[in-house]
Amino acid sequence: MSTQKFSSLTKMLSAFLFFLLSLPTFAQQATWIWYPGDYEVWLGNKMQNRRTERGSFLPPFWKLDSHYNLMDFHKDFNLSSPEEVEIFVEGQYNVKIDGKAFAGYPKKITVPAGKHRINLKVFCQDRVPSIFVKGKTIVSDSTWLVTFEDKEWIDETGKASDQSGTTWLKAGSWNFNSPLTPPSKFALATKEQFAVKTERNAKSILVDFGKETFGFIKLKGLKGKGNLTIYYGESKEEALSAEHCETLDNLEINQIQKKDSIMDLTKAFRYVNVVYDGSVSVDSLSMLYEYLPVTERGNFKCSDDQINKIYDVAKYTFHLNTREFFIDGIKRDRWIWSGDAYQSYLMNYYLFFDAPTVKRTLLALRGKDPVTSHINTIMDYTFYWFLGIYDYYQHTGDKEFIKQLYPRMQTLMEYCLGRRNKNGMMEGLAGDWIFIDWAEGLSKKGEVSFEQLLLTRSLETMALCANIANDSQGAEKYKNIGSELKTKFFANYWNNEKHAFVHSQVDGKQTENVTRYANMFAIFFNYLDESKKQEIKNNVLLNDKIQKITTPYMRFYELEALCALGEQSYVLKEMKDYWGGMLNLGATSFWEEYNPTKKGSEHYGMYGREFGKSLCHAWGASPIYLLGKYYLGVKPLSPAYETYLIEPQLGGLKWMEGSVPTPKGDVKLTVSDKKITVSGADSGTGTLRFKSAIKPSCKQGIVKEISPKNYELTVEKGKEYMVEYETIK
Amino acid sequence: MSTQKFSSLTKMLSAFLFFLLSLPTFAQQATWIWYPGDYEVWLGNKMQNRRTERGSFLPPFWKLDSHYNLMDFHKDFNLSSPEEVEIFVEGQYNVKIDGKAFAGYPKKITVPAGKHRINLKVFCQDRVPSIFVKGKTIVSDSTWLVTFEDKEWIDETGKASDQSGTTWLKAGSWNFNSPLTPPSKFALATKEQFAVKTERNAKSILVDFGKETFGFIKLKGLKGKGNLTIYYGESKEEALSAEHCETLDNLEINQIQKKDSIMDLTKAFRYVNVVYDGSVSVDSLSMLYEYLPVTERGNFKCSDDQINKIYDVAKYTFHLNTREFFIDGIKRDRWIWSGDAYQSYLMNYYLFFDAPTVKRTLLALRGKDPVTSHINTIMDYTFYWFLGIYDYYQHTGDKEFIKQLYPRMQTLMEYCLGRRNKNGMMEGLAGDWIFIDWAEGLSKKGEVSFEQLLLTRSLETMALCANIANDSQGAEKYKNIGSELKTKFFANYWNNEKHAFVHSQVDGKQTENVTRYANMFAIFFNYLDESKKQEIKNNVLLNDKIQKITTPYMRFYELEALCALGEQSYVLKEMKDYWGGMLNLGATSFWEEYNPTKKGSEHYGMYGREFGKSLCHAWGASPIYLLGKYYLGVKPLSPAYETYLIEPQLGGLKWMEGSVPTPKGDVKLTVSDKKITVSGADSGTGTLRFKSAIKPSCKQGIVKEISPKNYELTVEKGKEYMVEYETIK
Repeated sequence: MSTQKFSSLTKMLSAFLFFLLSLPTFAQQATWIWYPGDYEVWLGNKMQNRRTERGSFLPPFWKLDSHYNLMDFHKDFNLSSPEEVEIFVEGQYNVKIDGKAFAGYPKKITVPAGKHRINLKVFCQDRVPSIFVKGKTIVSDSTWLVTFEDKEWIDETGKASDQSGTTWLKAGSWNFNSPLTPPSKFALATKEQFAVKTERNAKSILVDFGKETFGFIKLKGLKGKGNLTIYYGESKEEALSAEHCETLDNLEINQIQKKDSIMDLTKAFRYVNVVYDGSVSVDSLSMLYEYLPVTERGNFKCSDDQINKIYDVAKYTFHLNTREFFIDGIKRDRWIWSGDAYQSYLMNYYLFFDAPTVKRTLLALRGKDPVTSHINTIMDYTFYWFLGIYDYYQHTGDKEFIKQLYPRMQTLMEYCLGRRNKNGMMEGLAGDWIFIDWAEGLSKKGEVSFEQLLLTRSLETMALCANIANDSQGAEKYKNIGSELKTKFFANYWNNEKHAFVHSQVDGKQTENVTRYANMFAIFFNYLDESKKQEIKNNVLLNDKIQKITTPYMRFYELEALCALGEQSYVLKEMKDYWGGMLNLGATSFWEEYNPTKKGSEHYGMYGREFGKSLCHAWGASPIYLLGKYYLGVKPLSPAYETYLIEPQLGGLKWMEGSVPTPKGDVKLTVSDKKITVSGADSGTGTLRFKSAIKPSCKQGIVKEISPKNYELTVEKGKEYMVEYETIK
Repeated sequence: MSTQKFSSLTKMLSAFLFFLLSLPTFAQQATWIWYPGDYEVWLGNKMQNRRTERGSFLPPFWKLDSHYNLMDFHKDFNLSSPEEVEIFVEGQYNVKIDGKAFAGYPKKITVPAGKHRINLKVFCQDRVPSIFVKGKTIVSDSTWLVTFEDKEWIDETGKASDQSGTTWLKAGSWNFNSPLTPPSKFALATKEQFAVKTERNAKSILVDFGKETFGFIKLKGLKGKGNLTIYYGESKEEALSAEHCETLDNLEINQIQKKDSIMDLTKAFRYVNVVYDGSVSVDSLSMLYEYLPVTERGNFKCSDDQINKIYDVAKYTFHLNTREFFIDGIKRDRWIWSGDAYQSYLMNYYLFFDAPTVKRTLLALRGKDPVTSHINTIMDYTFYWFLGIYDYYQHTGDKEFIKQLYPRMQTLMEYCLGRRNKNGMMEGLAGDWIFIDWAEGLSKKGEVSFEQLLLTRSLETMALCANIANDSQGAEKYKNIGSELKTKFFANYWNNEKHAFVHSQVDGKQTENVTRYANMFAIFFNYLDESKKQEIKNNVLLNDKIQKITTPYMRFYELEALCALGEQSYVLKEMKDYWGGMLNLGATSFWEEYNPTKKGSEHYGMYGREFGKSLCHAWGASPIYLLGKYYLGVKPLSPAYETYLIEPQLGGLKWMEGSVPTPKGDVKLTVSDKKITVSGADSGTGTLRFKSAIKPSCKQGIVKEISPKNYELTVEKGKEYMVEYETIK
C-alpha cells in the first residue's frame, strides 16, 4: 500500500499545470515517439503484471516480449533559418546533426539553416527508448524514421557504411504531447467515487458502491496498530468470503496520526469488506475510479426499456474493460486475450470508434519475433488476431498501420502454416491450446472444422494486407492456400444428412458431432449459398438438440449469425432472455458466463473456484455491436466507410434511434414503422436499404426501388433525410 | 560524476561483511540463477553502453537484445523433514509449492517433508529475473529448470494443461553466491593506484600512471568554482590534445569544502591532463584500477629477455581486455566483437583458462532470436562465433553448454545458409559487412575465398555440436553441406600457377589477387596435404610481394600458420621485430595496428582521427597463445584435454619454461636443448613428442621411437618426467 501515491500525483499535476502555463506556443504538434509496437509491448507487460489472486502476483503464462532497447531516430529537415530545438528523452542518448555528435546529453541544440539530418540514438532497458523534440518547425512525430539496427559502421579510413541493409519504419506514437509526461509515466484517469451503502460492524466495514466498478480503494482517517484486510467482491457473497474471495489486500497498520491511504493496485469490485484488528480504526472508504477517457460516440435507444437497460449495462461493461488495452475482464484475468479482444474491436467500432486502442491491443498481442507459440498459446486466438486486422482495415482504412505491421503478420502466418499436418490442416500440436469456447465435453481432437475456417479467413486477410504492403507474390500465395483450404473445408466437413458442418475429422473421418461454431461463422463470413444458410439455421442454430452455448462469448457469434440471416426478432427475444436474465439476477455488468439453470450464488463459481467467475467481462457486452450493426443496421461496405450500408431492422421494436460512429462523423438514425430519419457521416456515401409496404417518399433524395418492395436511398455526407414508408407486417 | 559511489560501495561492503558474520553454514552452495544467456545479454548491454567518445554516448550500431522478462523456475525436491527456505528475487514474483501460491512476496517459506515441486515465477523488465533460494538442502543452482513460456493454463473446471509444449532449460549461473549481491549489482573489482609522475602547471595537472591502465579517475581534495576537464590519453600527445583526445570528462565544480570525487565512467589511459578554471583546485589524482579477478595460470619464460618482456606485456594487454566480457580494446570500442573475442578465447586457454568468460562472451555475442544480421553485422564474425564454440569444446569438453546453446547455433546457421547465392556461396548482401582485416584496398567483392573457408569450418562445428545435442539428422545435413562447400573451395580458388588460393571469384571467375587470409587459415585448419602447405609457405607466407599484414589481428593467424608449418625460428624473429618494435616505441600494452614504416605520433592515428587507434587491443596479445601452443607446444588432442600433445619447439631459444592450463591442473614444462622436464595435468594423458639427435633417456617413463629421431613419451596425470636428449642442430 502507499500513502504517497496521492501526493506524488498532486505534485505531478501541479508541475504539469505550471508547465502548461509556461509553455510557448508552437506551430507544429510535437509528440513522444518510439519504435512502432514497442511501447504497446512494454505497457502490455506493465498492465498484465498487475494481476493478483488472493494477494499473490499472477502474471500471464505465455511469453512476454520486450521493446528494442537501442533505437535510432532521424529525420531530415530543410530550415530557412537556424532553429533552437528542445530535446526530451527516455534513456541514455546522443544527438547528432549530419552525423556529428554533441557532447553529453544536450537538452537544447541549435540546428543551422539549410538541409540537415537530426539523429538521436537512445538506449533504455527499463522503459521504451522514446524522444520528444520540439522547435519551431522541427518536431518529433510519426514522420520520423526509426530502426533498431542502423548498421552504421566506418572503415579504417573513417569512411561510413552505406546502411543499405537497414530497415526504417515510421515512428510510433499515441497522444503524449507533453514533454513532461513521457510514455513511461502514462496512467489512466481517475476520479473519486463514494459508497451507496455502508454497514459498520465491530471490527469490519462492508461497503456497497452500488454497481460493479474498478479502481483504487481509499481508506480515510486510518490509524491505530494492527492488521487490516480488504476483501473485494463483485458480489456481496464474495466480499464476505474471507476464504474464497478472489482478490484482497493485506495491510499492517502502525499509524498514530489519522491518515488517508490509497491502495497500490486497482481491483474490480462492487462490494468491499474491510476487516481489522488491534486498535485499527477507519473513518470511511471511497475509491478512485480508474478509466480510459474515451468518447461514447455510438448510442442506441428504443421502445423496449429492457433492451435500453441491456444496452446501457453493456456500454458500462465495455468501458470498464476498455483500458490501456481491451482486456477480458476487470477482476480477472485483466490480461489481453486475442479472442476476447476481437469482440471488443467490433464493439468498439459501434461505441467509441477508438482506433488507438485497437492498434495498441493488436500490437501488444502480437509482440515480437520469433513466434514461439500461438497468441495467448491458443490456436483460435492467433486467427482472431488476423481477423481483427481485417476488420480494422474495413472500419478505418488505415493502410499505414497495416504496411508497418505486415512483416509481423507474415512471420505469424508462417508459424501457422508450418504447423499444418500432412493433410494441410491445423491440428493441435504439443503446447497448442484449442479453445473454441468454455463448453462441457467439447472435443479438441483431430482436425477441428472451426480452426480450419478461421485459418481460411486469416489467409484472406493476409492476401488483402499483402496487397496493401505491395507484396503481390505474397498476396498470390496466401490467396491460393486460402482457397485450397476453403475447398477442403466444404469437402471435409459438410454433411448432407446432417445439413451442417460437422465438428471435426479424426483420422481422416468425419465425426458424428455437430456443434454450432463453424456453422455460425460460415454464415457471417458469407461463405454459403442461400440453401446452406437455411439448412444451418434450421438444423443447427434453431435446433435445441445441438449443444447450447452458455458463454456470452459464443452467444455473440450465434446471435450475429442469426441477425445475418434476418432473424432480428428472434435475436431480440434471445437478448432479452439471456442478458435480461443476468439483469434480473441483479447484474450491474455482464458476465463471463451465464447459465440460466443455475441458482443463487452458483452463478459466481467457475474454474472450480467459488467466486472464480468474472462478473464484468468484455465479451458480455455484445449487444452494443448487435444493436448497432444489425438493428440500426450500419456497416462499412468499403474501407473507412467510404461506402456504407444502413439497413435498419426493428426486429419487433416499435421504434429505435441511435448513432454509429465512422472515421469521420456519425451516422444517425431514427426509425419507426412509418418513418426513417437518417443523417450521413461527414465523409463517405451511405446506402439506406429498407423494405416498404407502400411506395416510400423522401423530400431530400430519390428513393429507388431495387426489387419489389425493396428500396434504396443514397445518403450523402453530412446530409439528413427523412423517409416515410411502412414496414411490412 | 559521482562522489556517492565510494560511500555506497563502503556501505555495501560493510553490509556484506555483517551478512557473512551472521550467516549460518549450509551444506549446499546456493547461487543466483537465471535463464541461460539472459544475464549475459543484459550485462553486455550495460557494458557496451558505457562507451563515450569525446563526451558523447556511443553505443553499438548493431541490434542489442533483451532478457526474457517473465521467467518460471522450478525444481522437485524430496525432503525427509520440513525445511525452512529463504528466498531472494530480482523482480516481482510468486512462490508456489505443488502449484499452490503463497500470498504476497514471501522471503521465507517452509517446505513440508515429502516430494514437492517448488516453483517461482518472476517478472522483471529492467534487470534479469533471477532467484536465490537457500535452505538446508533446497538451494538454487544450475540443476533448476527454467522457461519463459510455461503454457500452464487451466480449463473451465480448473484442470491444468499438460505443459507438453514447454521447453525447459537448465538455469544459468555464474559465481553470485551471496544473496546480497544479486546479478544486477555485479561490478568488477577495483584497487587504488597512483601516478608515477605529476606535472603541475598554472591551471592544469598532467599525470603519468607509468603504463596503460583502466579505471576511474579520482580527484582528491577538489574544491572551488569553475569548470574542470579531464583529458585522457593512451599517449602523452593524446592527453595534451584538448581538441583531439578520444575521451574526456567535463565537470562543473561548485564546492566549498574539499572533497574527493570519483568519475562515473571508467576510461583507458596512461596519461591524464586535468585542466580547470575559476577558483577550482585539486590536491592530487589517483585512480581506481578496475579489473576482473582471474588467475594467471599459464606462463612462459625463456632465455630471450625481449620475448619475456613481450610475453609480460601481452599478458597485461590481455588482462586489461578480459573484463565482463572479452572486449576489443579498452579505449575503444569497449565492445564485444566476435572476431576479436575469438582470438581472446584462444589466448585465454593459454593464460587464465577461464571458461565462464568464454561462455559469457559467446552468449552475449549471440544474443537472441530472430537473427536479423550477422554478429556485429560482420559475416566473418558470425563464422568466428561458430569456431569459438568448436575450440571451447576442444578445450573444456563442456557438452552441457553446447546442448543448451545448440538451438541458437541452428537459427544462426540457418540465417547464413539462407543468404548463400545461387552458387551456394557466401557473398555480401545489403547490410553485410565483409571485414577480413584492416588492409588498404582489400576487395570484398564477389565470393571471397576466406568467407567460404570460415563457413566450411562453421559447418563442421555444427555437425560436431549436432551430435552432442543428439540431432543426428542435423549432423548429417551440416556435414554434407560442409563437405560440398570444401570441395568447391578447392575447385574454385586453388590456382596451380600461383600455387595458392586466390582471394575471390567475381562473376564466376577467379580474380588474379592472392592474399594471405584463406591460405593461412587452410593450413592450421589442417585442410591441406604437405605439398600444398609448402607451396603456400613459399609463395604466400614467405613472399614479400603478397600484401603485408599490418594488424596484430591477422599477424596472429599468419604466425600461427607458420608455426603449424614448423617455422618457430622464423616466427620468433618476426615476434621480436613486430611486438618488439612496439616495445621499442615505448608501448606498455599492444596496439590495434602497427606499421613499422610510420613515425612518431603517426602511430596513434586511425579511422581518420589523430588518436583514433587503440593502444591496448586484445588482438595484440597473441604471443601468449603462440608461445603456449607452438613453443611449449601443448594442445588438446581430444575434448577437455582427455588426451593432449606436448611438442616443445625451442625455435632458436636456449631454454624456456612455462605452464599451460587445462580443465584440471596445469601442464608444466622446462625445456633446454639437452633436457625436458614435464609434469602432467591432474587429469588426462599427455604425449610428449620430440626429436633427438641421441637416444633419449627418462627414468620415470618409457620413451618410444616413433620414426627415426622422433620420440614419444606418455605423460600420466600428475606425474613428473625428466628426459635427457639432444636437439638436432
